[in-house]
Formats: sequence, C-alpha cells, structure tokens
Amino acid sequence: MYDVIFEADTHAGRWFDIGLLLAILASIFFVSLETVDGYADNDWIQVAEWALTILFTIEYVLRLVCSRRPLRYALSFWGIIDLLSIAPGYLTLLIGSSSSALLTLRSIRLLRVFRVMKLWRMMNEANELSTAIWRARNKIVVFLSVVLVAVTISGSLMYHVETLMFNVDPEKKINTESDFTSIPQAMYWATVTMTTVGYGDVVPKTVIGKIISAALILLGYSLIIVPTGFVSAEMINAKGTMADDRTGCPICEATGHRSEAHYCYRCGSRMS
Amino acid sequence: MYDVIFEADTHAGRWFDIGLLLAILASIFFVSLETVDGYADNDWIQVAEWALTILFTIEYVLRLVCSRRPLRYALSFWGIIDLLSIAPGYLTLLIGSSSSALLTLRSIRLLRVFRVMKLWRMMNEANELSTAIWRARNKIVVFLSVVLVAVTISGSLMYHVETLMFNVDPEKKINTESDFTSIPQAMYWATVTMTTVGYGDVVPKTVIGKIISAALILLGYSLIIVPTGFVSAEMINAKGTMADDRTGCPICEATGHRSEAHYCYRCGSRMS
Amino acid sequence: MYDVIFEADTHAGRWFDIGLLLAILASIFFVSLETVDGYADNDWIQVAEWALTILFTIEYVLRLVCSRRPLRYALSFWGIIDLLSIAPGYLTLLIGSSSSALLTLRSIRLLRVFRVMKLWRMMNEANELSTAIWRARNKIVVFLSVVLVAVTISGSLMYHVETLMFNVDPEKKINTESDFTSIPQAMYWATVTMTTVGYGDVVPKTVIGKIISAALILLGYSLIIVPTGFVSAEMINAKGTMADDRTGCPICEATGHRSEAHYCYRCGSRMS
Amino acid sequence: MYDVIFEADTHAGRWFDIGLLLAILASIFFVSLETVDGYADNDWIQVAEWALTILFTIEYVLRLVCSRRPLRYALSFWGIIDLLSIAPGYLTLLIGSSSSALLTLRSIRLLRVFRVMKLWRMMNEANELSTAIWRARNKIVVFLSVVLVAVTISGSLMYHVETLMFNVDPEKKINTESDFTSIPQAMYWATVTMTTVGYGDVVPKTVIGKIISAALILLGYSLIIVPTGFVSAEMINAKGTMADDRTGCPICEATGHRSEAHYCYRCGSRMS
Repeated sequence: MYDVIFEADTHAGRWFDIGLLLAILASIFFVSLETVDGYADNDWIQVAEWALTILFTIEYVLRLVCSRRPLRYALSFWGIIDLLSIAPGYLTLLIGSSSSALLTLRSIRLLRVFRVMKLWRMMNEANELSTAIWRARNKIVVFLSVVLVAVTISGSLMYHVETLMFNVDPEKKINTESDFTSIPQAMYWATVTMTTVGYGDVVPKTVIGKIISAALILLGYSLIIVPTGFVSAEMINAKGTMADDRTGCPICEATGHRSEAHYCYRCGSRMS
Repeated sequence: MYDVIFEADTHAGRWFDIGLLLAILASIFFVSLETVDGYADNDWIQVAEWALTILFTIEYVLRLVCSRRPLRYALSFWGIIDLLSIAPGYLTLLIGSSSSALLTLRSIRLLRVFRVMKLWRMMNEANELSTAIWRARNKIVVFLSVVLVAVTISGSLMYHVETLMFNVDPEKKINTESDFTSIPQAMYWATVTMTTVGYGDVVPKTVIGKIISAALILLGYSLIIVPTGFVSAEMINAKGTMADDRTGCPICEATGHRSEAHYCYRCGSRMS
Repeated sequence: MYDVIFEADTHAGRWFDIGLLLAILASIFFVSLETVDGYADNDWIQVAEWALTILFTIEYVLRLVCSRRPLRYALSFWGIIDLLSIAPGYLTLLIGSSSSALLTLRSIRLLRVFRVMKLWRMMNEANELSTAIWRARNKIVVFLSVVLVAVTISGSLMYHVETLMFNVDPEKKINTESDFTSIPQAMYWATVTMTTVGYGDVVPKTVIGKIISAALILLGYSLIIVPTGFVSAEMINAKGTMADDRTGCPICEATGHRSEAHYCYRCGSRMS
Repeated sequence: MYDVIFEADTHAGRWFDIGLLLAILASIFFVSLETVDGYADNDWIQVAEWALTILFTIEYVLRLVCSRRPLRYALSFWGIIDLLSIAPGYLTLLIGSSSSALLTLRSIRLLRVFRVMKLWRMMNEANELSTAIWRARNKIVVFLSVVLVAVTISGSLMYHVETLMFNVDPEKKINTESDFTSIPQAMYWATVTMTTVGYGDVVPKTVIGKIISAALILLGYSLIIVPTGFVSAEMINAKGTMADDRTGCPICEATGHRSEAHYCYRCGSRMS
C-alpha cells in the first residue's frame, strides 16, 4: 500500500497518480466555476466538491497511516498542502453559512486553490527546474533589485513630469486628468511598463511625458535584457555543470563528457 | 511524375513547389477576404475559391495516383491535410446554402485554413525546428505546468483581493465595477499578464489590488525567465550536439562527439 | 579630401563624421516636428530644413567628386540613400505647394526619413550585427513562417469562436459587439497577441473565447520561445565561430583560442 | 567606527547595514505615500520623514568624520548620493512652504528618491552585474541604434499610412480620429510596440494601417530577437571568461584560460 501511494514505479502506483491528477484538475475546475455568476449555488458543483473533499480526505488518512513517520509527514510541506486541500470543506460546516461569516468563509475557501501544488509531486522534471531556480536565486534577487531601483526612480520622475506638465498646460488639465495620481500609482505604471506587460490603464498623456516615457522604455528594455541574459547564462552554465558532474576522466581529468560516454574523448581510457 | 510532385530536386519539381506555394498563399488570402464586410458574396472571390479548390483536387488526385502506396498516403498526416483542403468546397455543394445550415457551413469552411499547413512540407529548416521542439517537449510541459500553477494561485488570490476590496470600500463599488468577476476571469487576467501580453481589458482597480498585482508581475516575470533560459539552454545544447554530428566515429558510428575529441566516447577508438 | 569623407581614421575625418551625425539627428528632429500641430508652417523649421538639404547636397556632390568611381557610388546602397536624403527638397520646389498636389508632396517628403539610414555608415559594431542577422536569415524566415502559420490558424479559430458565441448568446450581442469582425482582423489580433504586444483594441469578450484565447496565448508563448532560443543559439554559435576563425593552432589544430593568445593552450607551441 | 560604517565584515557592520537598508526602504515608502491623496499633510509621515532625514544626516556626518579623506568621499558618487538624501529636507525649511514656491519644492523633494541608490552599496552581486552591463555597453548602444532607426522609419511610415487612409475614407474620418496625430506620436507608438509593451492608447484604425502594422510588428519582433541574442551571447561569453579566471597562469598570471588548457596562452608555460 505504501508503494501504491508514495511510489510511482508500480502499475498500481501509476494509476493512483493518474487518478489523483484528474481529481486535482477537476477540483480546480469546480473551485473556479463556483465563482462564475449563476453557478455559485449549483447543487451539482456542491456535490462534486464534497465528493472531492472526501476523496482527498481518504488520500490524506491513507498517507498518514502508510507513512512510517506519520508526524513527520503531517508537518512536511506536502503534508500541510494535503491538509489545506481538505480543511476548508470541514471548516465551512463548522462556521455554517450564516451571512455574517461570508467574508471569513471566502478566505477559507481560497485555501483550496493550493490543491494545485499537489501537481508538483508528480513531475520529475520539476525537480530539475526547482534546482535551477534555487541556483539562480541570487541572480533573481539582483534582477528584482535592479527592477525595483529602476521602477522607483522612473516612477517618481514620471509622476513629477506628468503632474507638472498638467499644471503648466491649464487647458489640458480641464479636459483630461493625469493617470499618474500618486507615486505608488506611477511605480505601478513603471512595473507594468518595464516588464513589457503594458496594460494601458495608466499612460502618459502630455508630450513631454510621452518623450520621457519612450526614453525610459528603451532604457529599461535594454537594461532588462542584461539581467535576463545573465539568468540565461546561469542556466546554461548550470546545465553544463550538471552534465559534467556525472563524469570526469579518472586518467587525464578531462571534463565535459557526454552522459553516455564509456571512453574519455581526450586520452581514450575507459571510464566507469 | 512522382519526382515532380514529391521531390524538389528536379527543375520541374522546383516550379511545381513554387506554384503550389503561391496557390496556398492565394487561398489563405481569399478565405480571409471572404469574411470581410462587403466581400462576403463577391463573385470574383467565389470563382477564385473554386479555381483553387479544383487545383488542389488535381494535386490530391495526382499524389494518390503517383504514390506507390496510395492508401498509406491518404491516411498520412499530409494526406489528411490535403483532403481537408478540398473537402469543404464539395461539402458546401452537398449542404446547399440554405440559411438553416449556415452554422454548419461556417464550421466546415474553417477547415480550409489548414491549407496553410501545406507550407511546412516546403521548408527544410522546419524539420530542424520540429526536431528541436520535439526534443524540448518535456521542458515545454514543465514550463506550461509552472505557468498553470502560477496562473491558478495568482488568479484566485487577485479575485479574492479585488472583490474583497470592493466590498470594503462601498463608495468605489458604486462608481466602477471590479474587472475580476470570477476566478476563470482572474485566471484569464493572470495568463494575459504572466505572458506579458497585457491587453488591459481586465486590470486591478483598488490600491491593494495594484500593489499585489505589481508584486505578482515582478515575481511572475523573474520566475518565467528561468524556464525560458531553460528552453534556450536546451536549444543551445541541442544545436551543439547537432553540429558535432558531422564528426562521427569511423568504427562504431557514434555521433555527438565534442569538437576537440581524439577518441570515440563509446568504443574508445582513435578518431582523426 | 577622400580621406576626410570616406575614412574615419584621420582627425578631420572624425570631425566630419560627428558633424554629419548631428546633421542627421537634427534633420530627423525637424522632419518629425513639422508634423506636430502648430509647427507645420513654422518659418524656422523651413529654414533649418533647407539648410540641412543644402548641407546634404554638398556632402553628396563631394562624395561624387571624391569617389574614384562616381557612377558606382551613385548606384550603390549608400549613394541611393544619400540621393533620397536631398531629392524631396528639390522635388517640392518642382511640384509647388498647390493644394491638389498635397498628397504626392506628403509621400515624397516621407522619403527624407531614410536619412536615418546614414547612421549605419558610422557604426562599426553594426557590421557585426548585420553579419549576425544575415547568418540568422534562414532561422528568421522559419520563425516568421511558424508565426504566420500559427497566426492564420489561431486567428481563423478565434474569429469563428467569437462570432459563433455571439450568435448563440443573443443577449450579449445587443450590448456589445465582437471585436473579431473578420479573419484579417482576427489575424491582426493573433499577431499582436503572439508577439506579446497586446494592445487591447481587439479582445475576446465571450467566456469560451477567453478560454480558447488563454490556451492559444500559452501555446503560442511556449512555441515562440523555441525559435527565439534557436536564434539565440545561432548567435552564440556564430560568436564562438567568429572568435575561433581568427586563430587555430598550426601544430595540433586545436581551436577556440582566445584572440590574444600567443601559445596554443593544448600543445604549448607558439602561434603567430 | 570606520569598520562599522564602511565594512560589512564585522558583526556591528552587518547590523549597521541592515538598519540602513530598513531606513532606506521606509524612506522610499514615506516619500511615495506622501503623494497619495489624503496622506499629503499627514503629521505622522512628516515626523517619520524628519526622523529619517536626521538619521541620514548622522550617517553622512559619521562617514565624513570616519573617512580618511573626507573631501574625496564628499565628492565621490556615494558622497553625492548621500548628500542628495538629506539636502531636500533642509532646503524645504529654507524656502518655506509658501504656495508660490510649491513647484520648486516639489522638484527638490524629487531628489529624495535617489536614496534608493544607496541600496546598491549593499549588493555584492550588483558589482558583477555592473561589470556585465559595462562590458555589453557597445552592444546596448548598437541595440538602441537599431531600435531608433526602426522606430523612426516605421513611425514615419505608419503616420503617413494612417493619415492618408483617413483622408481617403471620408466616412471613417468623421466617426473616429487617427491616433497618429504627428510623427513624434507615431514614434512613441513604434517604441511602445517594438518593445512589446503595447499600451493600446495609440493603435492603427484603418485596414491598411493594421496590415502594415502587423507586418512591422513581426519584422520588428524578429529583428529585435537578434540583438537580444547578441547581448545574451555576450553575457554567456563574459561569464565563461569569468569562470576561467580561477585557473590563472602560475608564471605570467594571465587569466581567462580555457578549462581544459594545458599551456598558458600568453607565455606558453605548462599549467597544472
């Protein structure tokens, strides 16, 4: 039974994983559908939701029972995620659906979305990616800091330029209003712009504002490709290193062998 | 005749390919133009459309006749694409243009767009690209899963934040409405945002919503460059391997040697 | 004199280049300013425009005179660009500013914008970039073809989905209108979306349209990073090859030496 | 005391740095909050602002006192940034809050945003990034020039196409107006589009305009990935060189050897 639930090698374990995957996807689907107008109190969704909650409860109990160290599992990352997947259902019963508790209810139900995290457990490739992200964490912090500094400076600059220009040109001020109502708003604009998302809900409207904004976009864009290339370079090196780590010639110490290599490419000596 | 149609090496085969390319492009042009207001029932387009359908029919019949195994061709990927290119024209005749069948008609006509797939047959470089995409399929699945998980969590979070904030601030609720009407809508927003498309039809309107949204954008952006670098790294490694293919081992025919390799990594024999 | 104009090595040549650069930038500035409301018939701009035209005329004549093969220069890429820089000024005189010829006039004046091409002549790095683009031309064609095929298919699909959904749901049809008025419009949407520009002037409005659109965006985004990585890989290889091309050990034929290498890193023999 | 302030190695230096970091972040937070409606004249913010100004003044004085060469520090980059962090506070006192000086006041207060630059001093990784940006400066200039040329040409083209098409089609001209009111406006559009920001405040509205725009977007996008790959390649090469620095020649101390090098490329001496 331990094999079926925790390992994916056996035939039964495979089917268990596929079933769980479908249950997770269905759960996400129902949680989302519940918020769509007209489906909020749909009976079928309630039934499906409860069926899934019971299913996940059985899975949780089984994992607890099968596990050699139940407490350690319960306190592990996956244990908490598994608990969060079922708790909201039972908490709803406790609180009841009295209208006064609606807000609390909503927040609790949000937790069900973490069921999507269960997907990770099934992906082998994800481990490699997590390792890659973990290795690149310093670069990501630097990247975020660069963006933060750039966002603060360009946001403040644009806020002053736009409000100043609207003050100078009294005619325009009457017709339209600056979208840059405050520095946080301007920083929101800078974030949305520098990441090239560009919603268009906050845009410069004065001529000077547009010129400075175009200059900032170009500058920001050419600055942002440097940390991006940085992270890419890190990934490429990491991949290279990973490949190298597995093998190294015991005779001539040459590195960079293919993972399937039997003989050293430089000295031709046999490798284990 | 087989040479002319299936091979591009001969002079006649070249011209056949160029003619086919022009016919495909013209076909796409007419299919598109048909939907533009005022061109829908244009006689010239109908004539051109029929001329192209007949041309593609001749091509299909010739391919069937020339092919050594007609059935195998008919059931192959290209055979089905070729059939889909001509079928809608004849099906339209069968159904007639009675107004009640308009919807079915429209769906059938959509199939003609697959003619554009015929372009692939002409591109040699495309094979290399298909191989590259095929090799990177695991990475793409991981990438899509990462985005899916991120979209689900950030979408749900933003939906709750925006609706909560609009509930808290009753004044704003009257003036405007939250764009985040449901979780699927919020997930649509998250998808559009994380891929940096940023239409701007769904945007956060509350202050807290904007702050969380800016944080999510930055986080999403810095997370997304990691899988992007991952895929790039995969492509670069793939290319390196492909380039090395030229120096194959003369004994065991193993490929993928490093450019400076003296000995085959598989059999250990000396290479020039 | 030939040295001054065609070479940048001498002191005078340097100053000539800097002067020309400023003249080009000023010219672009005035051409742009002319179209801004209220500056159209500004006398100062007209004077500056004529001064620059005369300056560029002198430059053109000097280049013709100095050149060893005037005709060859006149018919070369740069010769034509230089001619296009001055021709519109004189053609305006010929046509006159009669209101009937305004449209022709406007088209001719557009040609002045090609003056910006003169910038290229001054950039050494640009040659390296041109070479890189030229080497990657096959990849770019493949990339554009992939995008074209994807744009055609997803555009057609979305057009049918959106118009169909608006037909099915009669209530919505009254309130709003689908942005997907025709297949070319839908292809415009697909282009704007797949390149992650995302203006937001054409957006899906039905629920099904949004779901399919989100799926297409994700698919498109994950497909587009493959050719992007492809081109990056090409650039990285090209750079590697360029560095390698300069040097190769005459004894052991090892490649990949640094450009400043005096000795082979493998066998230690002296390299020229 | 010098150690505490200028070095981060000691225990006290660490805490000093963390305290300073929090002070900078709090300062940015208050400067931003001040511009939000309803918080402008909040007493608490004024108090916090003054507390931070006094804190930064103490830091500045301490640095001046501790520094071995006070004048050199005062005129250095960090000295000026540190001065700009405190000057606005005292200048505000000098000018007073008379309404006539409001504009000058606002400009002075903008300077406080440069406090965010202080963050850089704390980041070790940032040095590596600065070096990388500095190495790639030529590429960035080329990249910006390419974008500038592309922006100028495509902007001018679109301006003429859109205004011409609106002239040709008199019906449309009445209903809507072209967003391309001038060439600078069109260049703003081109910048926003080519960097894939895509606000959507300036969009083509005529059919021809949309077709040309879609073509320009595709062309621009496929051209822009080349310089992007270029910069990435530069970063990757730079990283490779940096990684190799560890294996320096024991004789001539040359750095940047390949990882498999047996002989120094400069002096030819054997390396372990």
